[in-house]
Amino acid sequence: MGSDHLFIKTVPLLDYKNFSDESKTVIDFIAEYYRNIEKYPVRSRVQPGYLSEKLPESAPFGPESLEEILKDVSESILPGLTHWQSPNFFAYFQANASTAGFLGEMLCSGLNVVGFNWISSPAATELETIVMDWMGKMLKLPSSFLFSGTGGGILHGSTCEAVVCTLAAARDKALEKLGGSENITKLVVYASDQTHFTVEKSAKLIGITKSNFRVITTSFSTTFSLSPENLRAAIEADVKAGLVPLYLCGTVGTTACGAVDPIKELGKIAREYEMWFHIDAAYAGSACICPEYRPYLDGVEFADSISLNPHKWFLTNMDCCCLWLKQTKFLVDSLSTDSEILRNKASESHSVIDYKDWQIALSRRFKALKLWIVIRKHGLTNLIYHIRSDVDMAKRFETMVATDRRFEIVVPRKFALVCFRLKPVLESDGSELNRKLLEAVNSSGRAFMSHAVVGSLFVIRAAIGATLTEDRHVDDFWKLIQEKAQILQSQDVN
Amino acid sequence: MGSDHLFIKTVPLLDYKNFSDESKTVIDFIAEYYRNIEKYPVRSRVQPGYLSEKLPESAPFGPESLEEILKDVSESILPGLTHWQSPNFFAYFQANASTAGFLGEMLCSGLNVVGFNWISSPAATELETIVMDWMGKMLKLPSSFLFSGTGGGILHGSTCEAVVCTLAAARDKALEKLGGSENITKLVVYASDQTHFTVEKSAKLIGITKSNFRVITTSFSTTFSLSPENLRAAIEADVKAGLVPLYLCGTVGTTACGAVDPIKELGKIAREYEMWFHIDAAYAGSACICPEYRPYLDGVEFADSISLNPHKWFLTNMDCCCLWLKQTKFLVDSLSTDSEILRNKASESHSVIDYKDWQIALSRRFKALKLWIVIRKHGLTNLIYHIRSDVDMAKRFETMVATDRRFEIVVPRKFALVCFRLKPVLESDGSELNRKLLEAVNSSGRAFMSHAVVGSLFVIRAAIGATLTEDRHVDDFWKLIQEKAQILQSQDVN
Repeated sequence: MGSDHLFIKTVPLLDYKNFSDESKTVIDFIAEYYRNIEKYPVRSRVQPGYLSEKLPESAPFGPESLEEILKDVSESILPGLTHWQSPNFFAYFQANASTAGFLGEMLCSGLNVVGFNWISSPAATELETIVMDWMGKMLKLPSSFLFSGTGGGILHGSTCEAVVCTLAAARDKALEKLGGSENITKLVVYASDQTHFTVEKSAKLIGITKSNFRVITTSFSTTFSLSPENLRAAIEADVKAGLVPLYLCGTVGTTACGAVDPIKELGKIAREYEMWFHIDAAYAGSACICPEYRPYLDGVEFADSISLNPHKWFLTNMDCCCLWLKQTKFLVDSLSTDSEILRNKASESHSVIDYKDWQIALSRRFKALKLWIVIRKHGLTNLIYHIRSDVDMAKRFETMVATDRRFEIVVPRKFALVCFRLKPVLESDGSELNRKLLEAVNSSGRAFMSHAVVGSLFVIRAAIGATLTEDRHVDDFWKLIQEKAQILQSQDVN
Repeated sequence: MGSDHLFIKTVPLLDYKNFSDESKTVIDFIAEYYRNIEKYPVRSRVQPGYLSEKLPESAPFGPESLEEILKDVSESILPGLTHWQSPNFFAYFQANASTAGFLGEMLCSGLNVVGFNWISSPAATELETIVMDWMGKMLKLPSSFLFSGTGGGILHGSTCEAVVCTLAAARDKALEKLGGSENITKLVVYASDQTHFTVEKSAKLIGITKSNFRVITTSFSTTFSLSPENLRAAIEADVKAGLVPLYLCGTVGTTACGAVDPIKELGKIAREYEMWFHIDAAYAGSACICPEYRPYLDGVEFADSISLNPHKWFLTNMDCCCLWLKQTKFLVDSLSTDSEILRNKASESHSVIDYKDWQIALSRRFKALKLWIVIRKHGLTNLIYHIRSDVDMAKRFETMVATDRRFEIVVPRKFALVCFRLKPVLESDGSELNRKLLEAVNSSGRAFMSHAVVGSLFVIRAAIGATLTEDRHVDDFWKLIQEKAQILQSQDVN
């Protein structure tokens, strides 16, 4: 703040009274947004470039008031949002916000500490280790993944980051064994055609090209789970060709249709060929806190790492991805840096964790606060209840779809994602009909859903689980789909 | 939501009234924290493992109240923080929080949209393009970096991410030209010994090993800037050896001592050898909105990309890194994915940006809101004033140091980072003496500073610019240093 320049209107940068007043104004604004959220078209109706017509081309010279800014948020930003917090949002996977998650975000942002190593804010590192163990125990992970056992975990921002980091760890471990970085062209990564595309993107990022990325085809016969036999055949062919199996990704709850790979069988194969086995449980991992879903993780003891996103289905505002590892050493070997500028006694004592060595970036936010508050404000009971009530709604929706003869459930539901389609009458594969149905529903503004193609079939995905969704929204959603289907079919007949 | 389970106490997940009440309680908590922030020891005094003794080993079964949680934040978390928002924080580089940045974070977290592609929330993408142009214009970047010109930009979370992504783009472009991924072992990355360690880490991540990472030595004679002559010599040697120059990182405001590399000269060499030239302006880039610092960016027209972190010195709460590129195509070529599940008309029309193809992760937060509000609430004038007043305080501090004969300024100050040391009397290089001084100040709890080693000299870094720092804090900080120096020197004499 230093010297005074009288010619400009100075703005208090971080005065606690002004902070409190203005923050409460924004809280009221957000609360009002939640109160009215059903009034907005779920998928935004703006056209590309709409915002540049509303906002100036350059930054303002002088300060503007919060009132002016919030007016612009209301008039220019909100119409351009696709409302992920709408109870009528059924697209992709939900981004499950909650009051608890928001409170944690506020504390994280307000304290604004940067916990790259232990000493830069010990509580940030230590709370993260504690909360990773809490989560791990709720999921009944083996102690080999917990700090209280022989493993450990970290909060990344996304599954992509978790996959990039574990891939890099696996690569560097393998290259050391093979005796040179030029062997990178021998390393092969395995996934299924249902695996999230982030795995191929991550593999490319760390230097494994498309030609060394094996995509195992899945089918209706195994409800799109990765077949251990097919995996083994692919590995054997690669080994015969002189290649080296590096990394296998298994998924619990795939993006397209919620399929679950056979973790134990895959894990055994990975172990046999000395590959790194990662489990991507981004979406459905959260459900595994319920005893009835935990069996999907059976065999996790054969994995090297597992990740899940509390920002999807665990009431945690963006962003938050849990990654647990059995041998954290390999991650640190690959990602650690030794910089004089960060040298300190605690790190040199090797009695602390420096999370900068477990992730891509140096900087990091105090995300653990958010997950910690989500867990404490709800408790295990309410978290289980939350998962089950979403699944109950999905069952309810599934039943309604299944009992309407015009529709069919394409892939059996496992969690709260329902994949269905309008059965084709006049057309061979039904994709055009269902594309039209999708667009009719989405452009109505009353709900937003998305699609996938599984086994060459175009299916509509209804991911149930936005925080504010209640039975009545699911009922209205179904009525809307029926109504649009009716119109489409009558048009088809004409 | 869904069916009723009467045996548990249900917690409202996102009820707007409860949201408002509890959020305001947390706002009061944070405001109170700011009010009292000077009372905490700046660097935490806890011992490794302190928190596991205070918190339970497992998640609670039932819900806990916000009051209980905030009590634990006060009693268990706050003592474990190193307080980056303290006006007496002078370590590393500051993480410049502000009310405006916090308001933006709240909106981002409250709306909780996931703008991976345009349609998933058009406003998130469009505001980001607008705000990147606003920032670029404030910095007087050539139009070749702006959307309104022929380039464009994105908000990443950290410089590391910006470097990883641009390195990957450069690598893939080069490998295509060389005709095969096995040529990766020929690619060479250039930096100086002052370049942030993230560049070497990022190079390793994308598959460029240490043996192909050239570290050009700098020295006092050039105030630690990268010498174009030495760079050219290193490149020539590599080219002779059959290697291929890939990527050069120049820095405006190095971490150790705030050095500035000669951007124009480096850029010309990079162009001559067809290398990707990235400018890391993480810290000092923000200062370049002031006409007096803009010359440090002269030659930016020769760069392929430039990044700076508003979360350091631009009043933007963590995390936020601006990355501009001249040819965004190369980034997209390297990072884009084509997934059926995200297919939509807007993307297929190629009239929109899908930022998922410009970054590592799929998911992304609406960070543009935060930077937009920071810019609007302050306006260019106050932002310039903010930078200048920090520099004024640094000058004031530098003068006090320079006029005390026991001390010396080791590297000439360019921005608001002062590198100094207590001149050694009894010892040859003074490192032990200055280490002791550093620890004496830091363990007092009254201020926190950090160190670097430049040209083999151990120097103390005083990074002035925490948002709440005023002249009086700088004065007290200097008195504290003098006081500890006095004690140390009297001990040395005994």
